[in-house]
Amino acid sequence: MKGIIVREPGGSDQLELTDLPIPTLSDGELLIKVETAAVNRTDIVTREGKSGYAKSAILGVEVAGIVEKTSETSHFKIGDRVMGLVNGGGYAEYAVMPANRALKIPDNLSFEEAAAIPEVFLTAYQTLYWIGKLKRHETVLIHAGASGVGTAAIQLAKQVSDAKVIVTAGSKKKLEFCKQLGADILINYKEQSFDEEVLQATDGEGVDVILDFIGASYWEKNLASIKKAGRWVLIGVLGGAVVEKVNLMELMAKYVQLSGTLLTPRSDEYKADLTKEFAEVVMPHLERGNIKPIIDTVFPIEEVATAHHYMEENRNIGKIILRQSL
Amino acid sequence: MKGIIVREPGGSDQLELTDLPIPTLSDGELLIKVETAAVNRTDIVTREGKSGYAKSAILGVEVAGIVEKTSETSHFKIGDRVMGLVNGGGYAEYAVMPANRALKIPDNLSFEEAAAIPEVFLTAYQTLYWIGKLKRHETVLIHAGASGVGTAAIQLAKQVSDAKVIVTAGSKKKLEFCKQLGADILINYKEQSFDEEVLQATDGEGVDVILDFIGASYWEKNLASIKKAGRWVLIGVLGGAVVEKVNLMELMAKYVQLSGTLLTPRSDEYKADLTKEFAEVVMPHLERGNIKPIIDTVFPIEEVATAHHYMEENRNIGKIILRQSL
Repeated sequence: MKGIIVREPGGSDQLELTDLPIPTLSDGELLIKVETAAVNRTDIVTREGKSGYAKSAILGVEVAGIVEKTSETSHFKIGDRVMGLVNGGGYAEYAVMPANRALKIPDNLSFEEAAAIPEVFLTAYQTLYWIGKLKRHETVLIHAGASGVGTAAIQLAKQVSDAKVIVTAGSKKKLEFCKQLGADILINYKEQSFDEEVLQATDGEGVDVILDFIGASYWEKNLASIKKAGRWVLIGVLGGAVVEKVNLMELMAKYVQLSGTLLTPRSDEYKADLTKEFAEVVMPHLERGNIKPIIDTVFPIEEVATAHHYMEENRNIGKIILRQSL
Repeated sequence: MKGIIVREPGGSDQLELTDLPIPTLSDGELLIKVETAAVNRTDIVTREGKSGYAKSAILGVEVAGIVEKTSETSHFKIGDRVMGLVNGGGYAEYAVMPANRALKIPDNLSFEEAAAIPEVFLTAYQTLYWIGKLKRHETVLIHAGASGVGTAAIQLAKQVSDAKVIVTAGSKKKLEFCKQLGADILINYKEQSFDEEVLQATDGEGVDVILDFIGASYWEKNLASIKKAGRWVLIGVLGGAVVEKVNLMELMAKYVQLSGTLLTPRSDEYKADLTKEFAEVVMPHLERGNIKPIIDTVFPIEEVATAHHYMEENRNIGKIILRQSL
């Protein structure tokens, strides 16, 4: 089969489409004939050789496709349309997926739409609910609102929890898009001081939950934006990883719960449990269409280098999808 | 009545025993004839004028005594022996206490023992269970093991959760005392590198929960000592409040949940809920005597300055109690 590997750690020029053996199945796994895979930041980190957790020489952590083979009795059968997280190996014609991590693709969704779901929606679900403990009618601040996880989180917070959703983004176009997804308060971080806007929008109280992809450069403003006993979920450091002079008394005085998290390196069991709960809570919304996967662009898999480059420029609103040639 | 006030923010020489009016009752409160009050670090901070949350000119946040008057029907009656948190005003002959925060003193405990319970045991309960989510048979690292909250936390973790308890303290005498309370692993932080000892005692995995009274000076070693997805509860900054450089990627990579907390400034409702759960879970242990209040010294209330000075020198193991003159 054809698949994308990284020749040497480095830029997108290191990506190569090459011939590889079809992966073999272990117990509890499905062999998927891949139709589509999504591009994730973790793929870029892996490509650059900065990731300690690549399990496969082939890039790609999420796919949509058709069940080609099952290793044991499961509730999936050959020919089923499925989507889900894989432990690497997604940028290829065939990939193996633990069966307890596969989700049936609703009839109303294409393979392109399906590949846009697992990573961002599971991450958004994990961070909002498992880590951030978001409750009905609470207020959440979602940074990078037009990003993959951002667009998923806005929809979950509105549709599942009827939350008040405050987003930040860097352009009017991105903010307008967030509004269409349901965001209530739009903040252009290039023109406004987001903490002041947050406090104004919450009667000076701050937000219950922060989804923070930014890290160091937003530290002080996030601390000012969070409510007493708020939950601050740290899932990215696009604005730097190192904060100078952290005053722990401030975390104590506001009873802040700061949780760092990642999804990709979590255990198989964790991902299976997360997928199971996601299927119960969120899949009905995807089937009804009131929560939608957000696609920016679909590239043929041969153009993977262009797709990576596109993501590195932060030009996308929603997901970048790779499609196997027809 | 007589009570202790602070003349001017400053040292223990500013404490003055003076004549004051007996406090008046509001709905839902009890008037307590105070037999004993305990000394807490928050009293010292208030005395120094560094506290933003002193509600009363009289020091003291916990007392034990006899119900003198009730403002409404409650399950307490005049003459009942009770203990509990007060919103200031504890260092006096009479104090008011919200009835939903009062605990009946078990027959086997003296007033001196009773005053040694509320603040440290409620704080230990709150931090271990409400914030730290300690589960049965997990491993907990308790710094300042011989402190008031430390001695309470060791006992709770062992008796309520059968946890593996690792403590740090600065002397052999203090560690020996922690061992008698049930601590499994004893670390002298002056002679040993506690993170290395913790990793050795946990097969390199680290602990599920850290109770951290120390803050900045222990930052790196706490980060090294915590397990993946561990809960790190920050309740004091005896080792400094400001961490020079915090690398957020380290919190993300270990899925750390860092929670700052305080008990004294929490709402009345919070304290009532905590007291209620504490009564159900912990009071039976105190009645049976398998969990014990730890008293270091009892001073007559006239010697309050000496009592404060004694606490400021960190010489105590367990609580310092003030007793009304007989």
